[in-house]
Amino acid sequence: MATRPLVILGTGRIGRALLQQLLHRAGHLRERYDLALPIAALASSRLLRTGAPYLGHEEVEQIAATGLSGGEPVRADPVTRQRELIEALARASADRPIVVDVTASDATTPVLLGALDAGCEVVLANKKPLSGDHETFLRLTRHPRSRLGYEATVGAGLPIIHTLRALTDAGDELIDMTACLSGTLGYLCTELEDGRPLSQIVPRARELGFTEPDPREDLSGADVKRKALILARTMNWPLEPDDIADRPMIPLEEGSVAAWLAGLPAHDAALATRVRSAHEQGYVLRYVARILPGKCDVGLREVPRSSAVGRLRGSDNIVTARTRFYDDRPLVISGPGAGPDVTAAGIFGDILRLAGAL
Amino acid sequence: MATRPLVILGTGRIGRALLQQLLHRAGHLRERYDLALPIAALASSRLLRTGAPYLGHEEVEQIAATGLSGGEPVRADPVTRQRELIEALARASADRPIVVDVTASDATTPVLLGALDAGCEVVLANKKPLSGDHETFLRLTRHPRSRLGYEATVGAGLPIIHTLRALTDAGDELIDMTACLSGTLGYLCTELEDGRPLSQIVPRARELGFTEPDPREDLSGADVKRKALILARTMNWPLEPDDIADRPMIPLEEGSVAAWLAGLPAHDAALATRVRSAHEQGYVLRYVARILPGKCDVGLREVPRSSAVGRLRGSDNIVTARTRFYDDRPLVISGPGAGPDVTAAGIFGDILRLAGAL
Repeated sequence: MATRPLVILGTGRIGRALLQQLLHRAGHLRERYDLALPIAALASSRLLRTGAPYLGHEEVEQIAATGLSGGEPVRADPVTRQRELIEALARASADRPIVVDVTASDATTPVLLGALDAGCEVVLANKKPLSGDHETFLRLTRHPRSRLGYEATVGAGLPIIHTLRALTDAGDELIDMTACLSGTLGYLCTELEDGRPLSQIVPRARELGFTEPDPREDLSGADVKRKALILARTMNWPLEPDDIADRPMIPLEEGSVAAWLAGLPAHDAALATRVRSAHEQGYVLRYVARILPGKCDVGLREVPRSSAVGRLRGSDNIVTARTRFYDDRPLVISGPGAGPDVTAAGIFGDILRLAGAL
Repeated sequence: MATRPLVILGTGRIGRALLQQLLHRAGHLRERYDLALPIAALASSRLLRTGAPYLGHEEVEQIAATGLSGGEPVRADPVTRQRELIEALARASADRPIVVDVTASDATTPVLLGALDAGCEVVLANKKPLSGDHETFLRLTRHPRSRLGYEATVGAGLPIIHTLRALTDAGDELIDMTACLSGTLGYLCTELEDGRPLSQIVPRARELGFTEPDPREDLSGADVKRKALILARTMNWPLEPDDIADRPMIPLEEGSVAAWLAGLPAHDAALATRVRSAHEQGYVLRYVARILPGKCDVGLREVPRSSAVGRLRGSDNIVTARTRFYDDRPLVISGPGAGPDVTAAGIFGDILRLAGAL
């Protein structure tokens, strides 16, 4: 039986959904692929739980249900501690470990680079390590000896990254790509289109948990910019974060959340006018990422209502790509781009590919 | 450097597009993945060309441009000859060969099974081996020691099969799937929708090369049925061909092509009425495959004009899948589902996965 021990960084909703899937499918993987994926270690930013050598079924079940509670408290420097742990594990294990980063942290990069150097393979749902400087993207994704999968960094489980990588490897080249990559901004755009004012829909979306506690984090477009950068780099365009202008959905004042929310009505009239005048010309507003050879921008744009992107409603994500192979008519992939189960399934696919199962 | 010798069965348009991509990307694969994919043998139904041990660059270039002309003529029994060749190659080679079937033949199954038994891995664009009896599907796709990729059997290069396999492995389960899987029937449905009579559009589509020389092969839906069967089986439903009714787009009389074409006007009025009455109720006609747990049907159906399938125009393919993970809103993949470059790219992706590159 092939064994690939897993080290999972992050035990939030996605990490726990992944644990559920691993528990549920352990028998299937054994039977179908003669493959075991035991958990060697689990880490949050404060706690570290290691197995001897692996965590037991009931232990994993409990963490999947309620999160990581017991374990070694990591006080001073979780990065160094995690890195040491992974290096020790890689040395001690005859089987190549797979390190899975399901945090939203920008501090895991040294852990991941150390893991690759130590011979581990890596799977990311965390987009931050791949959306900083381009040099780090290359060090992570083009390691000479170890592979890294990152399907779940863009569009959760939608088969975007793997598809673009395979096309690029086959010699395909980008003509242009248009994508909606934020469920929250998609929801807001649809509500605006339906005539509701931003000053009503943002507070409601926030109450429903559709936005971050500070909705400016969503409206800034920073998350979309990170994903756009990953898409452009996957198609071999070496862009830096500064190559993409910051284009928040509306101008974002500083100050408390409450004060900012109270000031939202000031934007209603201008937005409503823009929605209406777009509508009159057959357009709708969408917060889109556009990627062209060597350049990329993100922002609120008028797109034809009858286009695939214009027809998208609600929080779904979409990527439409025209390439040398898909020149006449684009390749289009759409569906929910967030959620624990679909994101975990995207990670699961990467793990299976690294394990040589799929 | 890792080397995976390729044996390619079929040297038609898709086989030659694959050779072009392999030639064009040889340097990239060497540099990026330290991987070589030399051609050990190429076979048509009449000719066999083997290398010593591999075909030279110029030799492959020439075949990619003009097809296989020289080589050992295979007279009596190409299956036995190909099988012997592959077994000899697998014995002689330290590197595991990959056998690629880009024929449209229903006779390659014994060659493929022999290749898997001999330790080769297999990639299919040919859907016939996977759409006969379910037992053969299992023997090909669940071989205990060798893997088989078949992305290009449904939707050409669209990332359908690999995505459904990964979801299924992660524990996802089918709720329902609706798909348009024939570019030709999609084109005909759109033309009907635009008010043109079948008796005009079929002969024109035939002249443009959009249909088989005998368009009844397209209108029979047999090709869609094969693809639907592959999708259902990929989601673990053990259907047999007889479980899916044959539902041609119109009743298909026997006889010569010319006589059949001359009789087409007899269907125009009924089809036009059906198109019109669908339109009045907000529907359009599409030739769809529907896959539900344990069952599947194909045929001309009324679908809501505003649905993803209803909005599809022309020859594009689409798959919309609702699953346990994608329950609220479906996963949707669409785009050109035929063509040499995109089909070859689908094959290329399978080869790279088997070679452990992607």
